[in-house]
This record gives sequence, C-alpha cells and structure tokens, in this order.
Amino acid sequence: MSTIAPPIDPESDPRVKAVFDDIRETRGSDFINNLWPHLAFDPALLKEVWSEVKAVMATQSEIDPLTKEMIYMAVSIANACSYCVHSHTAAARTKGMTDGMYAELLRIVSLAGRTNHLANALQLPIDQVFDRSAGGAS
Amino acid sequence: MSTIAPPIDPESDPRVKAVFDDIRETRGSDFINNLWPHLAFDPALLKEVWSEVKAVMATQSEIDPLTKEMIYMAVSIANACSYCVHSHTAAARTKGMTDGMYAELLRIVSLAGRTNHLANALQLPIDQVFDRSAGGAS
Amino acid sequence: MSTIAPPIDPESDPRVKAVFDDIRETRGSDFINNLWPHLAFDPALLKEVWSEVKAVMATQSEIDPLTKEMIYMAVSIANACSYCVHSHTAAARTKGMTDGMYAELLRIVSLAGRTNHLANALQLPIDQVFDRSAGGAS
Amino acid sequence: MSTIAPPIDPESDPRVKAVFDDIRETRGSDFINNLWPHLAFDPALLKEVWSEVKAVMATQSEIDPLTKEMIYMAVSIANACSYCVHSHTAAARTKGMTDGMYAELLRIVSLAGRTNHLANALQLPIDQVFDRSAGGAS
Amino acid sequence: MSTIAPPIDPESDPRVKAVFDDIRETRGSDFINNLWPHLAFDPALLKEVWSEVKAVMATQSEIDPLTKEMIYMAVSIANACSYCVHSHTAAARTKGMTDGMYAELLRIVSLAGRTNHLANALQLPIDQVFDRSAGGAS
Amino acid sequence: MSTIAPPIDPESDPRVKAVFDDIRETRGSDFINNLWPHLAFDPALLKEVWSEVKAVMATQSEIDPLTKEMIYMAVSIANACSYCVHSHTAAARTKGMTDGMYAELLRIVSLAGRTNHLANALQLPIDQVFDRSAGGAS
Repeated sequence: MSTIAPPIDPESDPRVKAVFDDIRETRGSDFINNLWPHLAFDPALLKEVWSEVKAVMATQSEIDPLTKEMIYMAVSIANACSYCVHSHTAAARTKGMTDGMYAELLRIVSLAGRTNHLANALQLPIDQVFDRSAGGAS
Repeated sequence: MSTIAPPIDPESDPRVKAVFDDIRETRGSDFINNLWPHLAFDPALLKEVWSEVKAVMATQSEIDPLTKEMIYMAVSIANACSYCVHSHTAAARTKGMTDGMYAELLRIVSLAGRTNHLANALQLPIDQVFDRSAGGAS
Repeated sequence: MSTIAPPIDPESDPRVKAVFDDIRETRGSDFINNLWPHLAFDPALLKEVWSEVKAVMATQSEIDPLTKEMIYMAVSIANACSYCVHSHTAAARTKGMTDGMYAELLRIVSLAGRTNHLANALQLPIDQVFDRSAGGAS
Repeated sequence: MSTIAPPIDPESDPRVKAVFDDIRETRGSDFINNLWPHLAFDPALLKEVWSEVKAVMATQSEIDPLTKEMIYMAVSIANACSYCVHSHTAAARTKGMTDGMYAELLRIVSLAGRTNHLANALQLPIDQVFDRSAGGAS
Repeated sequence: MSTIAPPIDPESDPRVKAVFDDIRETRGSDFINNLWPHLAFDPALLKEVWSEVKAVMATQSEIDPLTKEMIYMAVSIANACSYCVHSHTAAARTKGMTDGMYAELLRIVSLAGRTNHLANALQLPIDQVFDRSAGGAS
Repeated sequence: MSTIAPPIDPESDPRVKAVFDDIRETRGSDFINNLWPHLAFDPALLKEVWSEVKAVMATQSEIDPLTKEMIYMAVSIANACSYCVHSHTAAARTKGMTDGMYAELLRIVSLAGRTNHLANALQLPIDQVFDRSAGGAS
C-alpha cells in the first residue's frame, strides 16, 4: 500500500526514461526497484533523488562500496525505514556482504542501539577531549 | 548535567577497578571516558556493558575496526545520541578516519536520512526480489 | 494485524456511538477510519483522543486546515508511523493538496531529514542569536 | 537556550496562576519546573497540557505511580528527549525508584533498544499468534 | 518478508537446539516466536541475544515481570518496532496486563510522546535541581 | 562542542567564499549561522548542502515560505535535532510566524506525537481507502 500510484507507463515520459536508463546503466542491471517508479509522478524530484544517490553511492571514493552500503543500512535500521532496510541489505549482499559480515553488522548496530539508549538515559556530559572546536581530540 | 552522579572514587570498588583496568589495557590508553564512571554506580551493569562493547568492537573479526566505528557512528547519529556521536567520532579518528572520509560518511548518512524520509512518506511496497524468506534475492 | 481487536459492534455502546456520530458530523462523511474502532475497547480513551483531534484539527484557527495536515504528515513521516502517514496524506488530499504540493512537501521533509542528520553528526553549537531566553532573535 | 522566553512574571496572568496553583497543590511542592513557565506564553496551551498530565499521571488508577513514571522515562529515553528524561527520572526517584531499580530500568530499556534494532534489521514477520484482530493471542 | 531466511531445520544444529530448549523451559511453553529462528543463521549471535533477554527479563529482580514488559513495550512503541510491539504486548498480556491496564499504558505512552515533542520544540533548559552530578535532586 | 572545528578563516578559500556570498545575498542578511562554517572543512559538501537548501527553501513555489519553515520545524522536532529546531524556529519567525501560530504549531506537532505513539502501539491495519496504489482514495 503506497500513498501515491506509480504512473502506468512511467517511461513514456522521456525525463523518466532518461533517469531509468541511467539507473540501469550505472547498476549494470535491468531491475528498477519500487522507489523509482513511485517518484516518477514528479520527474524533477525523481531526477534530483537519483542524481544524489548516484553521486554518493555509485561514484568511486575513499570509502569502499560495501562499507557505504553497510553505513546506509545502519541509518535505515535506526530510522525504522522498512523499505530502505530491505533495499540496502540486498545491495550490500550484491556488493559482497557475507552472512558472517551480516551477523557482525547486526551485533554492532544492536550494540549501538543499546548504548545509545544508555547514554540518552544517563544524559552523560561530553568528555572535554571529544570537543574538536576546542582542539581537544587528536 | 547527568541523571546519576558517578562515585567519587569509583576504583575503590575492586569490581569497578577490574573493568577500568581492562578498558585501559584493551585500548592501550589511560583515558576512561565518562560513560564508564557513570555506570559504576552498579558494578554488574558496568561489567555487562563493557563486556559486550569489548566483544563486539575490540575483537578481531571480518569487519575492520574503522568500518565498525563508522557503522556505530551512523546509528548514533540517526538516534540523536549526542554523547555517542562524540565518543565514536573520536574513536573513528583514532582508528584512521580522515577528514575526507568523515565528509563522505556525512554524505552517506545524510542521504540515507533523506531517502528514509522519502520511503516512509511514500509507504513503498517492498520489491518481491528483496524477500529472503521467499528465496527472492541472491 | 493489530494488538487489540475492535469490538464487533462498537456503536452498541452509547459512549462510542456518541463519538462516532460526532466524527461523522464534524467531517461531513460516513467514513470512520480504523483508529477509532480500535480505540473503542476503552470508550473514555476514545473520547479523549477524538476530543483532542477535533479541538486541534477541526477548529478554525490561524493556521489553515491544509497546512495543519501537512505539518501532521511531516511529524508522522519522521516518526515512521505508517498508519498516520497514510491517514494524514489522505486527509491532506481531501483538503486540497495537489500532486505538485505533495512533491514539494516530499522535498522539504526529506531535506530536513538530511540536514537533521548532518547537524546531529556535527553536534553544532547553537548560534547565540537563536536563543530567545536571552532575548537574542527578533 | 530555549526557543521562547518565559514571561517575566507569569503568574500576573490569572489563568497562569490558576494552573501553577494546581500544580503546586497536586504535587504538594512549591517547585514549578521549567516546562510550565515556558508554556505560559499561551495560557490555553499551558492549561491543556497540565490538565492532561494531571489526569494521566496524578490520578489514582490501576498502574501505580512509580510504574507510570518508569514507563514515561522509557518513552522519553527512546525519543532522545533530554528535558523529559531529566524531569521524569527525578519524578521517579521522588516516587521511590532506588538506584537498584534504576540500574534495572537501564538494563530493560537498553535491551529493548538492542532488540528493536535487531528486529527492524531482520524485518521479522509477525507471528500469527500475536494478532488480536484474528483472535490469535489469548 | 524478512532480510534473512531462517534455516529450514534450525534445531538440527545442536547450538541452536540448546538455545531453543532453554527458551521453552524458561517460558514453560513450546512456542518459539519468529525472532529466534531468524537469528539461528548465526548460532553465536542467537545465544548472545537469548542470554541477555533471559538475564534481564526472566530473572527475578526488584521490578516485577509485568512492569518489565510494559517498560519494554514503551521503548518498542517509541522506536516504531512493529515486531517488538507485537511480541511484548502479547507477553505483557500473558503476565497479567488487563485491557484496563493496556488503555492506561496507551495514555501514558502517548502523553509522553506528546510532551517529548513539546520539550524538544521548546528546547527547554534543564532545571538545576534535576542535575545529579551537582548533587541537586534528592 | 562540535565534532569538527570550523576553519579559522573559512572565506580565504574562494569556494567557501562563493557559497557564503550566495547565502548572504539569498537571505538579504550578513548573518551566517553555524552550520555553514562547520561544513566548510569540505567545500564540495558545503556547496551541495547549500544548493539543496536554496533550491527547496528559497525558491518560489506552490507552498509559501512560512509553511515550508513550519514543515521543516515539524520534522526537526520529531527527529530531536536541537540545532535544526533552533535555526528553523528562528527562520519561521523571520518569515512571519506569530506567537499564536507557534502555539498552534506546538499543538499540532505534539498531538501528532501523541497519535503516532497510539497508532504504533495499536499496530493499526491501514484502511483500504487510503491505498493509492489500488486507486482507493480520491
């Protein structure tokens, strides 16, 4: 159940087709996941979101592609975004995440969930050494 | 301002001292950050939390130590845990996170924040191919 | 799947019927959405919630009805409340939200999601001028 | 730093004074915490919020006062509401929460934080038996 | 739809069987809810999570079992963890939560949700008296 | 306390100066709030974020500027982003938000907080009529 119906034939709009073509080429796959046709009701928004995703996730950079996906998964899990958890877990597997790495990610993410709740409960004062504005940590 | 006062001399309790000694040895540093003395009012809880943190974060495993810290940061940012954001950003720097990698992490985390909100707004249906219980993705 | 079964014939209880009648009259519609029968297991709670919703959302005030619904949508999206996203997106459409406005709301909400994550990551100091208690902003 | 300045002499407005008097009488204390003067810029809103807090938290009911406060603390911790964590931890202590109970609450809340992240990561299917709408659980 | 398939015959692994046996014995029931088989792909993680849940939730302590479950529910609701809301609402009922108590829990949790949003909006300064590190509250 | 130190003289970098000049011109003010110098350690990221903020918030469109700010505030409050709550409350005031409108926004946002928690607790089934993918709502 979605809050907007995807267009029946989204690629009949050349602006949508251009984005979908770029998704297929960038990913080397014919599969277009549900996010994109649901954004196609507004081709400008579709293009903005895809451009940002491509620039951040599909461009070579200092952080390797699998690590990027695991960071993305971590945020999505914490934000309880069901769709994003599914799509980025699948993407991480495509980029090499083994079951062993997945189990480890679950340990890290759930431990962070635990200590986040502890620290928010205790309302801990920030250690002076963590403050970069004061030139503390190094 | 915290919700509990750390004991004045926490290490006078040998259970606390044992944990603090292990923290120092594991990290190769004399610095004990505020989380630990604030947990020292209940030595059993202190030991449980440290044991879990040590097992997940300070034990060699498939995911390298810097990636672990960046995943931890990602969860802490999404959960708005001020203390944890500070402590794990500092830890990631200690483990080699450069300013360039930090900028990239900010891009990934904030993009995930953006698409998490989009997907939660659109209430997207999960693509069948993402469902592992049905043997979909591979 | 819900955590409570709605009563089989909720309006057989006159306290429930009174609330449902008021919902229908206030909204000018016979449609009662799922929230209300699921609250009917406790007629006092049902009445409290409806009274508050009616006072805030269905009473004429400085903020126009469509803007109210878009603010409600924004909170519900950020809180990952699937049901509320659906019900308030539908309500916003009833009150005049076009597809163009919806696309724009998605841009604002997802941009806020992005910068919220950035600011929580950077742990930005609050600008003095924002502080009303000091008489800063004007 | 707050987003609104409390009135300099809030009780000069009789509507504010009436609410503050009721807070003092209900709690048996002269202390008025910061929430209330900051809401006093809009006396109607002040009265609505206090009426609801009084009805839920200060009225005798099936759940005892300390348990109520601990439930309130749990929500506030999970929502990262710094002010509410502080005010309700203090209130729970006033109503009898010992350090031992506080340590136990921290264990429960942080364990829930952990398994919430696990379940959101795994996107677990709901067990049929949990569904009350189907008459499953009993 | 889950992100991992549970093993077809999880108890063929003796490490999994040992945990499942302990769950059944501890709970006095043959029912194993979905969380556990979905964690069985990594028997060490399964054991860690169950050990922690058992130690916190199934061991006699100062806070009674029903109160523990209601605190757990409160966190799970605030974190929008659909699975955990279902499983802990069912567990609370098993431990004696009546419909009247459930309605009251809904009042408390939703009031906390309301005032958490108010306090986060107002960015209230913490009352000095709440600060335990300064020896304020007593 | 921030996790990164802003450059001592950020505008000595022409890429930073170009963005700051555009902020000043777009807003018709010499004031540059803390977000921007803290992003200046990575001029490309600074430019990306400002470009997006300008495109969404400072470009004339169907939703008026004040409504945009109130929607932004709503998301920031729900996400517990202290900095963003401050900066966008100030911006909303600059664009005409009166104290009366602020009180009303607080009512809407906190009511949404309340019903979001209720709906997440009840795990309400989505009404068929809300589903746009099925052509339900109109």
